[in-house]
Amino acid sequence: MSKIEVAILGATGAVGQRFIQLLEGHPWFEVSELVGSDRSAGKTYGEAARWTLDGAPPSSIRGKRVLPLDAELESPLVFSALPKEPAIEREPELAAAGHIVSTNASAHRMADDVPLLLPEVNADHIALIEAQRRKRRWSGALIANSNCTAMPVVMSLAPLRRYGIEKVNVVSMQAASGAGYPGVPSLDLIDNVIPYVPSDEEKLEAESGKMLGALLGDSVQPHPAVLSASCNRVPVVDGHTVIVSMTLREQPSIEQIIEDWVNWRANDDVAALPSAPEHPLFYLTEIDRPQPRRDRAAGNGMSTSIGRLRPCPLFGYKFVALSHNTIRGAAGCAILNAELLVAKGFLDVARLRDEVTLA
Amino acid sequence: MSKIEVAILGATGAVGQRFIQLLEGHPWFEVSELVGSDRSAGKTYGEAARWTLDGAPPSSIRGKRVLPLDAELESPLVFSALPKEPAIEREPELAAAGHIVSTNASAHRMADDVPLLLPEVNADHIALIEAQRRKRRWSGALIANSNCTAMPVVMSLAPLRRYGIEKVNVVSMQAASGAGYPGVPSLDLIDNVIPYVPSDEEKLEAESGKMLGALLGDSVQPHPAVLSASCNRVPVVDGHTVIVSMTLREQPSIEQIIEDWVNWRANDDVAALPSAPEHPLFYLTEIDRPQPRRDRAAGNGMSTSIGRLRPCPLFGYKFVALSHNTIRGAAGCAILNAELLVAKGFLDVARLRDEVTLA
Amino acid sequence: MSKIEVAILGATGAVGQRFIQLLEGHPWFEVSELVGSDRSAGKTYGEAARWTLDGAPPSSIRGKRVLPLDAELESPLVFSALPKEPAIEREPELAAAGHIVSTNASAHRMADDVPLLLPEVNADHIALIEAQRRKRRWSGALIANSNCTAMPVVMSLAPLRRYGIEKVNVVSMQAASGAGYPGVPSLDLIDNVIPYVPSDEEKLEAESGKMLGALLGDSVQPHPAVLSASCNRVPVVDGHTVIVSMTLREQPSIEQIIEDWVNWRANDDVAALPSAPEHPLFYLTEIDRPQPRRDRAAGNGMSTSIGRLRPCPLFGYKFVALSHNTIRGAAGCAILNAELLVAKGFLDVARLRDEVTLA
Amino acid sequence: MSKIEVAILGATGAVGQRFIQLLEGHPWFEVSELVGSDRSAGKTYGEAARWTLDGAPPSSIRGKRVLPLDAELESPLVFSALPKEPAIEREPELAAAGHIVSTNASAHRMADDVPLLLPEVNADHIALIEAQRRKRRWSGALIANSNCTAMPVVMSLAPLRRYGIEKVNVVSMQAASGAGYPGVPSLDLIDNVIPYVPSDEEKLEAESGKMLGALLGDSVQPHPAVLSASCNRVPVVDGHTVIVSMTLREQPSIEQIIEDWVNWRANDDVAALPSAPEHPLFYLTEIDRPQPRRDRAAGNGMSTSIGRLRPCPLFGYKFVALSHNTIRGAAGCAILNAELLVAKGFLDVARLRDEVTLA
Repeated sequence: MSKIEVAILGATGAVGQRFIQLLEGHPWFEVSELVGSDRSAGKTYGEAARWTLDGAPPSSIRGKRVLPLDAELESPLVFSALPKEPAIEREPELAAAGHIVSTNASAHRMADDVPLLLPEVNADHIALIEAQRRKRRWSGALIANSNCTAMPVVMSLAPLRRYGIEKVNVVSMQAASGAGYPGVPSLDLIDNVIPYVPSDEEKLEAESGKMLGALLGDSVQPHPAVLSASCNRVPVVDGHTVIVSMTLREQPSIEQIIEDWVNWRANDDVAALPSAPEHPLFYLTEIDRPQPRRDRAAGNGMSTSIGRLRPCPLFGYKFVALSHNTIRGAAGCAILNAELLVAKGFLDVARLRDEVTLA
Repeated sequence: MSKIEVAILGATGAVGQRFIQLLEGHPWFEVSELVGSDRSAGKTYGEAARWTLDGAPPSSIRGKRVLPLDAELESPLVFSALPKEPAIEREPELAAAGHIVSTNASAHRMADDVPLLLPEVNADHIALIEAQRRKRRWSGALIANSNCTAMPVVMSLAPLRRYGIEKVNVVSMQAASGAGYPGVPSLDLIDNVIPYVPSDEEKLEAESGKMLGALLGDSVQPHPAVLSASCNRVPVVDGHTVIVSMTLREQPSIEQIIEDWVNWRANDDVAALPSAPEHPLFYLTEIDRPQPRRDRAAGNGMSTSIGRLRPCPLFGYKFVALSHNTIRGAAGCAILNAELLVAKGFLDVARLRDEVTLA
Repeated sequence: MSKIEVAILGATGAVGQRFIQLLEGHPWFEVSELVGSDRSAGKTYGEAARWTLDGAPPSSIRGKRVLPLDAELESPLVFSALPKEPAIEREPELAAAGHIVSTNASAHRMADDVPLLLPEVNADHIALIEAQRRKRRWSGALIANSNCTAMPVVMSLAPLRRYGIEKVNVVSMQAASGAGYPGVPSLDLIDNVIPYVPSDEEKLEAESGKMLGALLGDSVQPHPAVLSASCNRVPVVDGHTVIVSMTLREQPSIEQIIEDWVNWRANDDVAALPSAPEHPLFYLTEIDRPQPRRDRAAGNGMSTSIGRLRPCPLFGYKFVALSHNTIRGAAGCAILNAELLVAKGFLDVARLRDEVTLA
Repeated sequence: MSKIEVAILGATGAVGQRFIQLLEGHPWFEVSELVGSDRSAGKTYGEAARWTLDGAPPSSIRGKRVLPLDAELESPLVFSALPKEPAIEREPELAAAGHIVSTNASAHRMADDVPLLLPEVNADHIALIEAQRRKRRWSGALIANSNCTAMPVVMSLAPLRRYGIEKVNVVSMQAASGAGYPGVPSLDLIDNVIPYVPSDEEKLEAESGKMLGALLGDSVQPHPAVLSASCNRVPVVDGHTVIVSMTLREQPSIEQIIEDWVNWRANDDVAALPSAPEHPLFYLTEIDRPQPRRDRAAGNGMSTSIGRLRPCPLFGYKFVALSHNTIRGAAGCAILNAELLVAKGFLDVARLRDEVTLA
């Protein structure tokens, strides 16, 4: 069987590079089209991109010509690593033209009919696509993943929803790569912490509720927990650490929660996806873990690591969680989301290819 | 007038070095005796100490001979930068022998009759010395400063006590120097965060209550606010940053609180002390401040910088605060505390010198 | 006596900010005009500048209106922190209009008639100004300081010229601030080294020769030593470290060289300048010094620290040297250079002011 | 075929951990015995070792009991990550008792009859084992790998020996992991560089000559190139960067040298070893590479990356090279060396096992 061809929007940026890296050798997908800014379009990828990940771009990618943002795309599946502004218009256009768009951009995340997917947590939200297609008359679809800081929070809380999550306080220590490249100047992060990450507190508060929420007809009822976030940037390359305090109505024991985390698995459909980690969650028993440099690669960057669950005199419980922000928190999640759509039959490759060709 | 001679216990360590640095050129105090570990005793300070602060130790100090821990001291005033274990016995012995001991060690901080001083906040707590002397039959005295992470919290909360502080959640991002030297291995802090600082959460929770508490007869009634702390180590040299959420019973406006902070001053007795900063608190209006590298030197390292006060859906208010952990949070505070005792007449130099000589 | 009014070109950038910081409280100079880019012009300095040094801009500066680059300036003395491109035209225009321009820009450094000044080393090079004025018919003047990496090299070598410096190999480890702000992305410097600094190797090789060279009539004969430089960027905020190997024809002893360094002083005229450090050079005897964080502040950032002089099987000698790159290596040196011109009578304030007004 | 059982001396330290990590899943070797200090002996590895690499120790290792240094070992092959002092006696004892000891310790590296192996460079040096066994009457053998900083230098120079290497100047920027754990305090490496690494300059100068040297009868004639090294510690986790200047008698072109590097391969025997990288050397054409964080993982940490070859006015040529210091520069090289001995028949497993049992 031939692989599904994919396009990457914003292919030269930091998240675009991560898409390329993670899709190298992917069993279902093959990078076919690279879309860049006006500055990059027309150059080869090797010329246009300043590769900032480890090593070098795959040789199969290096010679590919970068397409302009408005290029007609042939790939049925489109991954978007666009900044918010260009995403606002271009992503719906592509979905309207029959593409499945799996985006990391924030532009449409909170739209009622756009599923904000974290497959282990809310795979059922893909049902929103029906409403989306009906309402917008799209033959394609648009799905999104959340802000990278929300991931370790939502992954940790998901298995505890049955205890009644009432309050959640989050203080993040976020990696530099969350701001892209060039992103945060080194003069701001050597021997320093920046106690502010533009708009992440708002995103974290809103998106976590949507992801943890329940599908009700054509929309998602946000989870009722009240969430407060304080976001900080620390001198770390990759890996967002969150200090979480929470109140659970039913007050399970510490041991019970740890057991819930350790035993939590995605349902079988999701667990079978190529990018799904065997363990969505790890619980580390060492007193000083998880740590970003040492734990971000857990589950190939797709697992969330948790530690230090202990009583909190204010909330009941507090703990530390960590995810890789550009894998699980960005490109890796968008790929997993797309795999879910393929598995659920949303990406009828034959049909899509016809439509796209005809469009 | 000749200066008061002081001894420094633990003089070769990180906090001991900071004492030496801050006392260089001090208008009232003069470093006379340096006390070190068995390994250091007998060597000159220049030989014994691996100076880890900027520059080099003052030349007046370099040639001084380091005394053993059990040496009889002549200096009426003793600053202690001892680790906890040796402090347990040695500090009371010196207080019993007539010395005024101003300690940074944690050993006796929570003892009922030991004032845990932060002069701008609780100068009245020095009255505990009367009980201490009565009960312990000491001619000297023992006063302590708190854990370095508690400082920015207590300094920020002090002016707000009149609004009824009910709940406080603190997440810290602490500098490497808080662990002394050699302290935290670089392999633990390059591209990394350690979400755990041994025993600091417990200290912060207990000591903040005592410092903010009210003197009631011979003891301090801890402040009734419930405090929860999560402590983290980040790749920063100096400067502890705290993310604070708080509930105030009377719910003043954001503007009112900022005004309280900006206008807060120590009482005149304290403000006149040589090491007292003109502004105990600065409120920074930039959205991304305070930052440890850029703001730790405020007020010569003795001021606390605050920023980002904003509403919190869980607590009512949240903000960021920062203090220099080895100046305001350690040696600088111990010096200010000693200055307070001198100003209040506790250090009767003539009398003390006789006693010490006779002892 | 009223102070000399100065203008700062490129006032909002990293070096511009350092000018402002160092001129705060300067005994001779007073910042009067701030010149910025088109984006900044018209705003107050507080609005236009993102202050990236410690603390905040002086309050006297914060409210000043930023002027456009082509503004007519009234200040007789102009400090330039312009990028190379705008400096090419604007600096000569201002010199032609009667201003004394002391620049940190590289644009005119290697022009035959522009003195590349390091006052302790080559104060006599100011004589080039005569040729400059004659040739260019300027009533003002243009003087430059060198690339920041050349400073510790030239300062270290200057006292050894009498031994016949034949070969010099330099490997630098340069601080992030050398690239300005935003400069080097944090993703490039966390847990990393960049073994390349655009154009610094060429600058270092050429400018060192000119600075160490001898004035011969209307031009400077470059020093004949062959110099090879390899420049690297390391995760340090401020302070350029250089590993220097050198061949001296006369082969003095290690002790002799150290003595030469320790005893080296600027001549009296230079030593009396307000920004001249008492010790141009410090020799540190600790085996692991100088270090950028601990030694960059020596002499208020104007001294060079040297250490580890030892035999080299290839060159004869090798050692480590270090200077603060934005103080001695940029703004501080430009200020010292301007002080020298004032002391030498080049800045006839009364005359200049008339001319400038008339221009 | 069953795997060869191996013991690891110094198993709980930083290099010991790297041995464990690299041997996980090794096709020929299986970790059977773990030897630690007195403090660790008797505990399980999970209890005794503070794992400082990413993730966690393999579960197969975690429960193993740590043996004391003087334990009789059954494994025919012993990897040593001992500090120098204990290595002096223990390694020869084990070799005498019939074990093949592949050590990373410096204790015996420069002994005449101990091969200092870098298989791509000097596989023929294993012939020294004959002399070693004859002279010392050992049934086992002792082989060593060099200091971690010498690796990128020797790997880069090896293919150029035929041009007559005359002079080599090396300035290193070494990673923190080179000093083990706890190693370098974070207070020494945040915003800092340490221009000194104890004894590495001497090691690099001596060991490089031996590794590049020619086998002559029973000993190695050191390569005659004169080498000078200056070693520095920088805030990098893993990966030693070296700035190399060299003089080649025959003066090949830049292009020729790059071609030599790119085409250089180990001989077939070595290339077939499980840990041998396909490319011993990579030449990177980007102007700012190699960089430690981005290039240390090349060839699974076993390849050396080179860049920036350019003319040098002093030496003829200069370039940058980089290797992973705890993989190629330590444990990975010791494993490759042992593989070479197995391939060459030195490790007659059946025979060794008998001897060891009988010993």
